[in-house]
Amino acid sequence: MSTTEPHDAVDVIVTKRGKGELSDGQIDWVVDAYTRGVVADEQMSSLAMAILLNGMTRREISRWTAAMIASGERMDFSSLSRPTADKHSTGGVGDKITLPLAPLVAACGVAVPQLSGRGLGHTGGTLDKLESVPGWRAALSNAEMLAQLDDVGAVICAAGDGLAPADKKLYALRDVTGTVEAIPLIASSIMSKKIAEGTGALVLDVKVGSGAFMKDVDSARELARTMVELGTDAGVRTVAVLTNMQTPLGLTAGNALEVRESVEVLAGGGPPDVVELTLVLAREMLAAAGRDDVDPADALADGRAMDAWRRMIAAQGGDPDAELPRARETHVVAAPADGVLTSLDALQVGVAAWRLGAGRARKEDPVQAGAGVELHAKPGAVVRGGDPLLTLHTDTPERFERALAALEGAYTIAPEGSRPDLLPLVVDRIA
Amino acid sequence: MSTTEPHDAVDVIVTKRGKGELSDGQIDWVVDAYTRGVVADEQMSSLAMAILLNGMTRREISRWTAAMIASGERMDFSSLSRPTADKHSTGGVGDKITLPLAPLVAACGVAVPQLSGRGLGHTGGTLDKLESVPGWRAALSNAEMLAQLDDVGAVICAAGDGLAPADKKLYALRDVTGTVEAIPLIASSIMSKKIAEGTGALVLDVKVGSGAFMKDVDSARELARTMVELGTDAGVRTVAVLTNMQTPLGLTAGNALEVRESVEVLAGGGPPDVVELTLVLAREMLAAAGRDDVDPADALADGRAMDAWRRMIAAQGGDPDAELPRARETHVVAAPADGVLTSLDALQVGVAAWRLGAGRARKEDPVQAGAGVELHAKPGAVVRGGDPLLTLHTDTPERFERALAALEGAYTIAPEGSRPDLLPLVVDRIA
Repeated sequence: MSTTEPHDAVDVIVTKRGKGELSDGQIDWVVDAYTRGVVADEQMSSLAMAILLNGMTRREISRWTAAMIASGERMDFSSLSRPTADKHSTGGVGDKITLPLAPLVAACGVAVPQLSGRGLGHTGGTLDKLESVPGWRAALSNAEMLAQLDDVGAVICAAGDGLAPADKKLYALRDVTGTVEAIPLIASSIMSKKIAEGTGALVLDVKVGSGAFMKDVDSARELARTMVELGTDAGVRTVAVLTNMQTPLGLTAGNALEVRESVEVLAGGGPPDVVELTLVLAREMLAAAGRDDVDPADALADGRAMDAWRRMIAAQGGDPDAELPRARETHVVAAPADGVLTSLDALQVGVAAWRLGAGRARKEDPVQAGAGVELHAKPGAVVRGGDPLLTLHTDTPERFERALAALEGAYTIAPEGSRPDLLPLVVDRIA
Repeated sequence: MSTTEPHDAVDVIVTKRGKGELSDGQIDWVVDAYTRGVVADEQMSSLAMAILLNGMTRREISRWTAAMIASGERMDFSSLSRPTADKHSTGGVGDKITLPLAPLVAACGVAVPQLSGRGLGHTGGTLDKLESVPGWRAALSNAEMLAQLDDVGAVICAAGDGLAPADKKLYALRDVTGTVEAIPLIASSIMSKKIAEGTGALVLDVKVGSGAFMKDVDSARELARTMVELGTDAGVRTVAVLTNMQTPLGLTAGNALEVRESVEVLAGGGPPDVVELTLVLAREMLAAAGRDDVDPADALADGRAMDAWRRMIAAQGGDPDAELPRARETHVVAAPADGVLTSLDALQVGVAAWRLGAGRARKEDPVQAGAGVELHAKPGAVVRGGDPLLTLHTDTPERFERALAALEGAYTIAPEGSRPDLLPLVVDRIA
């Protein structure tokens, strides 16, 4: 141990390895020293595995999150005349809710500072979706962001490198060392960025099911509870809802396809599940921001949400009237028989959309704006053999084969009268 | 995953993280790919932590050991006219047994090819001890080693870089990532080198107690059983004895101090515990090599063992008649009261010897030949207040203070008639 460092990485690792509780000093030091490069990647990855297998107490997770926040800058929206609320989804297939939700909540008088990311793997990224709008740009300075929040009330933009740099470094490490699935680390990764972002209220949409990070309700509930505790401990009014991700949300998975569906919702139409979840989350955000006197259904019905959307897109250089890109090629998957569609697997649809070009395998890969999967039926629907079930979209038709392989066994058509065995759209609420 | 690699590191890590069994293909690949640098240090360290916490089956450990052996060369002593037997100690304080044992067994007609290491931390290294003999050198080529085995029958030298290079890389990683204490990895590390070394029989001295790696009998027994299984599976006749390391072995801990004590044993004297353990291990080695018709006590008594020692030292450039180095300064610790010495802690004596200069904190540190701790009484002895209990030796007297701090509370003097509560010298035998 160097005499200038107050702790030793091996001591910290051995403490957690033995199911011990890390002290505040150990946590502050190890996060800071890792950011400085004094604790090496191979030390942090064995610590991450020990945390994954042996867990952390509420105090440890809270301190770990604070240490990650302390590694970077914090934003401050206290100069705004409106309260702020943000939403975070743990990610799913067809989850475009942020797109109609942010302008809807803004239209109800609460500012929404959404710092978003890009997609990796089978789940799409909000920025990738919005980048299919011609002219729209994701990068804003803090001053631009604040001005847009003041003016439009909603901003969806890329998180700068200044927020929780320790998290950025740690996430990249976890990704290659089999240590992503540690609830304390998932929770502190999400919450460090959201707390540093400076929102006053936060609604967490914790997805559960095949297409989600959390495959079962118990682990989703544990993650939700952990994040609500972290937000509460940090003075952010935080609520979580657990929602179904056994089947895709809405009828589209893919970048421009999802923007189109979001615009339909803002225009008063769109798939019922997308409309319902948008309103559920809007009500939670408004309530957490102290505005439960406002009904977001009104702002959706009377066009104020659509107005906010158009101004939000335009403020970031986008043309809300421009036609959205379409893929050059399509391939229709027909229903093989008459019956009831009882399942349509979210993960498999997500992987198919990814393989068609909507997602990326590595951070530096490009995505296709028009690629993705369009659903013509949702579980519970009666279908006729030969009718279109799915339409695959891509600019690169050689991808159809791998996408179709991903869809093998992705759906079940049962005799008429059968019912799907699915979780409800909203599974639970944790406050 | 690169298309040229048959496995993916994250898949291997996730399998073990979930308490799964790694396949032969996964083990072969991950050890080889780590040696090649395709699996990164941060991936191997999270895998090592998962192995430490979730364990490995006998099949997995055996395969892992085989993969480490396959990473380098194997030695072959089949051209020798004598059978071969080796001994490995898991390391302790004052454990100089290899020094009298190797020539004693050679004098009984069994060749001893001892590839040894240097000390790190509080346990001394056999090569460090022998290097206090003027002129003696540790580095031998394979041809020199074979020639010396044929001629003298015993060789103690440094293991070349060619044996199990995967183990060398992995051990250095475990040392800084809190993953040393994993029984499957300890066992495969030791046994990969001993099996690659090509010995026909192997006796393992598994130490248990404060001065040992394994602090309790159960974990020592588990390590012993794992290593015996590994040796047996690889066709090496392997036996383990569990021996006491609650208190130092013999009356010295330190390089030249231990050589002096070893020569006393070879001359027919020496502390009773060193003599006893030397004979116990010699009998096990001879039996495992098929020579249980020979009594090593005879070869010790009639001077044949001493002859073999002198020839072994001389063959490696050492002068068996040269005076051994002595430290420039000594400091005597007196017994504080009359009574029975009921405990004298091995770890604390080891740390004191290390701090006096006998050991090193980092691989590149030098050691002092003369430094160490000399014991004037062992647990069970009656002492008088003011009588010398320990003598500390060093060339650098500023070290006395830290050595004395390490010895704080290291011994207990109880009223006369008291008895120490210690394990027997030989605790168990596992074959």
